[in-house]
Amino acid sequence: MSILPEQITTAITEFSKLPGIGAKSAERLVLHLLRSQKASPEALGRALIELKQHVHYCSQCFMVCSETQCIVCSNFNRKHEQILVVEHPLDVLAFEKTGYNGVYHVLHGALSPIDGLGPEKLKLKELIERVQTQKIDEVIIATNPNIEGEATARFIQNALHDNAVKITKLAHGLPMGADIEFADQVTLGQALSGRSSLR
Amino acid sequence: MSILPEQITTAITEFSKLPGIGAKSAERLVLHLLRSQKASPEALGRALIELKQHVHYCSQCFMVCSETQCIVCSNFNRKHEQILVVEHPLDVLAFEKTGYNGVYHVLHGALSPIDGLGPEKLKLKELIERVQTQKIDEVIIATNPNIEGEATARFIQNALHDNAVKITKLAHGLPMGADIEFADQVTLGQALSGRSSLR
Repeated sequence: MSILPEQITTAITEFSKLPGIGAKSAERLVLHLLRSQKASPEALGRALIELKQHVHYCSQCFMVCSETQCIVCSNFNRKHEQILVVEHPLDVLAFEKTGYNGVYHVLHGALSPIDGLGPEKLKLKELIERVQTQKIDEVIIATNPNIEGEATARFIQNALHDNAVKITKLAHGLPMGADIEFADQVTLGQALSGRSSLR
Repeated sequence: MSILPEQITTAITEFSKLPGIGAKSAERLVLHLLRSQKASPEALGRALIELKQHVHYCSQCFMVCSETQCIVCSNFNRKHEQILVVEHPLDVLAFEKTGYNGVYHVLHGALSPIDGLGPEKLKLKELIERVQTQKIDEVIIATNPNIEGEATARFIQNALHDNAVKITKLAHGLPMGADIEFADQVTLGQALSGRSSLR
């Protein structure tokens, strides 16, 4: 029998189900919430309960939103002929900061047979349908540069092979602020083969 | 205007008020809760709302509990003459694992003038009252070995000066598994001055 009250242990158990939060961190978070002036367990609790009730996925691009269409898809000033394909909703936020002016398509994951994530679990069928039924000029594949992301990119490339649509993918190379001395060989090789002409 | 629905940004704001959770981690946690099979925002939300409603502080030792007295204070098999004074409720959990059989007193902090934490903000008056009114043999001071903890220990020692009660504090020295080569000089000095005789 734990010395802590049941309400605290329940909160600790639920917290420790989150990624990166272990039993110890969960204990500290819950005890912090109990005595904090700034953070309130009620406010966080209410926010979490309302989360799934009011959050939907855009019928077009599957970004999280509160209406049936997200604010990107319902904005007529954006280039609806250009689709940027990403794995997760947070990737959309990252691209929004770059000033990208097209629309998105959120796959909600990448192909990963080991984790049981086949094409049917992702929003791939919906992407292909969009390309086939709408007037799309370009599909920019922006999956993560790892095995799963590359496999997903290849899958999309094959699936759209018969369409006239232009398919591009993000450039790979050295990130800003990187140190060539410490760059891994794959990145350095990609930076070399993808070199651009200065004059 | 954020591209994310209001419910998500509210949850992110509340999460990022927690210690060690920044804006980025909060985003990831909320988006994880939305799609996770294992973690549920409703369960965590309910647990947090119930947290403050049902959690009380023990009238005796100020440990968090669900009744008016905690299970340690209401256990007659424990040595009620021995009080272990700790800063936080989680410290009690740590001592419970050692097999300690006395009772506790949770101060809910340590003296820290910089943070505006004077003696009146801690459960110090209540500790002194317990020692004066109950039959107490020993007060074991187990505040953290840092400036605030040491100042609090000294305060308790002075406040109980006129009482006949025995006052002890935790041993300082090398922790198990430590490497003497890397031990700091204060710890090593304390380990040396507090050395014990083997024969």
